[in-house]
Amino acid sequence: MIVIMKHDASEQNVNDIMARLTELGLRGHRSQGEERTIIGVVGIKPGFPELRDKLEMMSGVEDVIPVTKPYKLSNRDFHPFSSTVKVGGVTIGGNEVVVMAGPCAVETEKQLIDTALFVHSAGASILRGGAFKPSTSPYSFRGLGKEGLIFLARAREETGMPVVTEVLSPEDVDLVAEYADILQVGARNMQNFPLLDAVGKINKPVMLKRGLSATVQEWLLAADYILDQGNSQLILCERGIRTFETATRNTMDISSIPLIHKLSHLPVIADPSHGSGKWYLVTPLALASVAAGADGVMIEVHPDPDNALKDGPQSLTFENFALLMKKMDPVINIMGRKLAHQAANK
Amino acid sequence: MIVIMKHDASEQNVNDIMARLTELGLRGHRSQGEERTIIGVVGIKPGFPELRDKLEMMSGVEDVIPVTKPYKLSNRDFHPFSSTVKVGGVTIGGNEVVVMAGPCAVETEKQLIDTALFVHSAGASILRGGAFKPSTSPYSFRGLGKEGLIFLARAREETGMPVVTEVLSPEDVDLVAEYADILQVGARNMQNFPLLDAVGKINKPVMLKRGLSATVQEWLLAADYILDQGNSQLILCERGIRTFETATRNTMDISSIPLIHKLSHLPVIADPSHGSGKWYLVTPLALASVAAGADGVMIEVHPDPDNALKDGPQSLTFENFALLMKKMDPVINIMGRKLAHQAANK
Amino acid sequence: MIVIMKHDASEQNVNDIMARLTELGLRGHRSQGEERTIIGVVGIKPGFPELRDKLEMMSGVEDVIPVTKPYKLSNRDFHPFSSTVKVGGVTIGGNEVVVMAGPCAVETEKQLIDTALFVHSAGASILRGGAFKPSTSPYSFRGLGKEGLIFLARAREETGMPVVTEVLSPEDVDLVAEYADILQVGARNMQNFPLLDAVGKINKPVMLKRGLSATVQEWLLAADYILDQGNSQLILCERGIRTFETATRNTMDISSIPLIHKLSHLPVIADPSHGSGKWYLVTPLALASVAAGADGVMIEVHPDPDNALKDGPQSLTFENFALLMKKMDPVINIMGRKLAHQAANK
Amino acid sequence: MIVIMKHDASEQNVNDIMARLTELGLRGHRSQGEERTIIGVVGIKPGFPELRDKLEMMSGVEDVIPVTKPYKLSNRDFHPFSSTVKVGGVTIGGNEVVVMAGPCAVETEKQLIDTALFVHSAGASILRGGAFKPSTSPYSFRGLGKEGLIFLARAREETGMPVVTEVLSPEDVDLVAEYADILQVGARNMQNFPLLDAVGKINKPVMLKRGLSATVQEWLLAADYILDQGNSQLILCERGIRTFETATRNTMDISSIPLIHKLSHLPVIADPSHGSGKWYLVTPLALASVAAGADGVMIEVHPDPDNALKDGPQSLTFENFALLMKKMDPVINIMGRKLAHQAANK
Repeated sequence: MIVIMKHDASEQNVNDIMARLTELGLRGHRSQGEERTIIGVVGIKPGFPELRDKLEMMSGVEDVIPVTKPYKLSNRDFHPFSSTVKVGGVTIGGNEVVVMAGPCAVETEKQLIDTALFVHSAGASILRGGAFKPSTSPYSFRGLGKEGLIFLARAREETGMPVVTEVLSPEDVDLVAEYADILQVGARNMQNFPLLDAVGKINKPVMLKRGLSATVQEWLLAADYILDQGNSQLILCERGIRTFETATRNTMDISSIPLIHKLSHLPVIADPSHGSGKWYLVTPLALASVAAGADGVMIEVHPDPDNALKDGPQSLTFENFALLMKKMDPVINIMGRKLAHQAANK
Repeated sequence: MIVIMKHDASEQNVNDIMARLTELGLRGHRSQGEERTIIGVVGIKPGFPELRDKLEMMSGVEDVIPVTKPYKLSNRDFHPFSSTVKVGGVTIGGNEVVVMAGPCAVETEKQLIDTALFVHSAGASILRGGAFKPSTSPYSFRGLGKEGLIFLARAREETGMPVVTEVLSPEDVDLVAEYADILQVGARNMQNFPLLDAVGKINKPVMLKRGLSATVQEWLLAADYILDQGNSQLILCERGIRTFETATRNTMDISSIPLIHKLSHLPVIADPSHGSGKWYLVTPLALASVAAGADGVMIEVHPDPDNALKDGPQSLTFENFALLMKKMDPVINIMGRKLAHQAANK
Repeated sequence: MIVIMKHDASEQNVNDIMARLTELGLRGHRSQGEERTIIGVVGIKPGFPELRDKLEMMSGVEDVIPVTKPYKLSNRDFHPFSSTVKVGGVTIGGNEVVVMAGPCAVETEKQLIDTALFVHSAGASILRGGAFKPSTSPYSFRGLGKEGLIFLARAREETGMPVVTEVLSPEDVDLVAEYADILQVGARNMQNFPLLDAVGKINKPVMLKRGLSATVQEWLLAADYILDQGNSQLILCERGIRTFETATRNTMDISSIPLIHKLSHLPVIADPSHGSGKWYLVTPLALASVAAGADGVMIEVHPDPDNALKDGPQSLTFENFALLMKKMDPVINIMGRKLAHQAANK
Repeated sequence: MIVIMKHDASEQNVNDIMARLTELGLRGHRSQGEERTIIGVVGIKPGFPELRDKLEMMSGVEDVIPVTKPYKLSNRDFHPFSSTVKVGGVTIGGNEVVVMAGPCAVETEKQLIDTALFVHSAGASILRGGAFKPSTSPYSFRGLGKEGLIFLARAREETGMPVVTEVLSPEDVDLVAEYADILQVGARNMQNFPLLDAVGKINKPVMLKRGLSATVQEWLLAADYILDQGNSQLILCERGIRTFETATRNTMDISSIPLIHKLSHLPVIADPSHGSGKWYLVTPLALASVAAGADGVMIEVHPDPDNALKDGPQSLTFENFALLMKKMDPVINIMGRKLAHQAANK
């Protein structure tokens, strides 16, 4: 941490900072510039999370700048090799690119199983489907709840595909973990800290979506919450951020994919369905995500998007999903990787 | 709801829409323009929340535009008189302007009671203080929990001031409600729907902060969640939104205050401490909020901001808080209102 | 400037930086932490604007952090007393609060003079009106051009009020300066550097609006462009920034008003008409701006907003403008200031 | 255009709207819903650009919604076939993917020609380089001006590559057009309307970058300015937008690429160098852009990024550029397209 003094800070101000640092068991390296003094702080342990605020308040201080990144367990600096997460026969984060597909919301057993069979046959290796649905309006469909979980389990039996589904509340973690293979923490809950703690305590893979207005740093700090509770089976998912642009529902931040790979060892999946909110943008953004290095994509598919209970406009028909898979496969190969499905079926 | 057809939509496309509407028990009014056809949909009941998505997916449709606002219970159209919330001797939302003040986090009994006594003597009528603290980093102080609630209750005994404090999880609602007079739902939890449901079921006032990247419409829909569960003792709180600007921690959206008063009957409080993140901006923004019509302000005050465990840089010293109150009182009067404290002490 | 080395930077990396600094005539202060090395750079002259980029590219460097603010001439650190700008009998930036009012666009001589007479009688002291209008669409009204300037000059003769109007292009600066008392650089041109240079060379007051997505720092750098050409008669104007919120046309960033007063010596005006885009928000935001310390407000007024050629929805009627002035006057007085008009008429 | 009446609008309000429409030579189709009346407006000609504002101001009106897109000449609806722009032997917007490369700023003749020769040998077909540089700070390098243009012309002679360079001011359009093959309008000037008019009047290709905070719709309206002056040789360029994220300099909005292709017939180029501001993100984002359908990429390359006068941190070394080209070629082929260079050399 570096303390930058004001250009008119007094000698006393500087001495006060040095004394405070000593008091806290730290050391200060003083650097006298022509315009101002700078103090490098040495000896900080993780036990001083509020140090910055403390120093920033002292007289004569212009600014306090952290030198180390605040996230630790998700930081590639301390964990140089990429992590992988195994679920069913699929490995996420290695050489394979995984496709998660299925309806936004589980509506009926038939809708789910039809979709599951189709996406599996087209190359998906993980089934997605929401049983507990976050909904901006209290008057909208909020999911089938436990019944939806049961349908997901049946679809898994039918297809062999592991299942990813969202959990909304710490109270539901055990229930969802009973049925799901991957528990999803949604964008609106990225900073629901009791939920992060709860999924950090289970022994199942978790997929943490980026918050609508979360910086990459905040996202990795949220990842640290889960890792810090002992659960290292963690996958990140970019799903678009909120910007001023209204032509798309969100702005898919594809740059976060290579950025996460640089900053963190965790695998990262792309969700172009939520990332754009427009079915006609899903395929180009899925291809772009894979070209940018994504470890997988998550795609909403519905047998009849016109009649979907949730997010029809961003769902692909079976036909369009098959087309996407056909276009994506050669891009995966060009990137030197393989579609996970083939490996999963070996 | 209005369906706008594409300029090259066929007669068949239009007939399909009309047929679908009939099928759903609705009626369509067709309006033939020179460039395209427009269909007004009549007869929509709250039971069709996904209608927009359904129609948007049909062939020949360019766009579907909702005509009515999606929030209902918080909408002033259906509730023209301003709501008030009574807590202790204070009425929020009427002619009085209420000041909520106290430390960001409860740290020790002494810190809290000293602050409570001071802010009360300076004109505050509600005590704020966090026992359960959301924190971006898992390595930061997360609050004293139940012990903090006990300290808040003691501070209430000492000063007579009602207490507002945050609840982070549905599981904690009963516990927090046992001690607090107002339960705060924080910005990060504005779309934590199970939590909204839970605080909607209690018989205590709730203060709902605006999410970091929530539109005013989403904020009112979140309010509808709480109202829909039967709890009408609801207060809104503007606390700044996330923008590209980095000179302030958030951008305090003061325009939301008169906008909420126009769109909704609910009272709205301003939080310039979180809204700016800089103590030296708190006073001008508090004055501005009152001049814009805020029903109250919430201010962070700490006996020793240099040593605060949370958010020192945005906390006022006792001296600065007293100065703020001195400057704010005439602005409140000029607006034709009164500081709530005086009324509370009658 | 501070260079933060990577945690695994080699001794050679550090030596290379130190050598480069020497080569550039600078000195480095090395500070050895437990995790990494930090180098404070001493002796930087304004002649090294690209130093940061240069150092950031070197091997072993994690980050380079500027210590001094990049704006100089607008910086209060080097000019502690507030600047004032005199125009006609009005002083902007001193104890008075100035009201600039008039139509968005000059449409006819009658429209302008009627409006000018009314706003003057209601307490405005500067007349606004656009002759050259920036317009998002090429198919919209783009202003009367020179004819509009002539009408503005006539309105000045009729009322005695100085005139502020926008200039869009370096080529038009001389023409506009012939007629106007204050030249406005609009939000879309805040980083039109040839235009900034051109208005920096004239001997007339300039009002520089904040760009739609400009940080406060970028705004002050744009101010430096004008000041650097020798024109010190500079006024800033906050007019709202672009955010995700769509309920208002822009988000009025009222916190920028006290922030500019802290960081800069320049006067700052608030434009709640563009800042909100909704006539019913103009009055509360004008009051809020004055309460936050604005040196003036700029208000759009139109005799018949229903038939305005530009921005009707954000224009006040005569009646509403008179009401605003009536409400604003006591707020100005409470802030210890006076409405400029009274002084102007002495 | 559709007029949505308030739920409590009177019969008189509706009649007033109908009468006003008749007065304006338009017709209104009235649609009576259960909650409110809706009026479809028929017969609008391009001569009514301010109609929306006019109607929005009338009594009883809740909202006015435009039905047709405001951009015309750039709209694919009225121009279904994709446009191409020919420059030198290269066709932009057809089956080929073009690579524009070179230094951010022209610094010396040697720097430019060395870079031009290298990027040409590696597969680039258009040379980029700034002679007139927009710079946030007045104290930074602002380009060599005319001398830079002369160097660009020499580099074209040496390599045969056409040249793209930025023009900042209407006054400079003729000068820049004398030397350049494509005139670039930069992001900060996307709404510099006199400049758009000026480049619309020349007979040379223009590349229009998206503004930092411009919506796709505003970008296409800016394109309409140029097309409306008669210049149809227009190329768009996505270069990242401003968001809350600070880990990248801008957020590259890759979704705008397929969106532009859907909404407009104009070709669109991606600039991942400015789009990210980080050299290590340039390659993944270039690949992603091509996979999303970009008609080309623009890449900053510098022989010695450590010593670049502008934007070193986002420039590729020769080595990294060669690597990018090697990775990008198979992605171009997988997309069913060809690198333009090969065609250009035929």
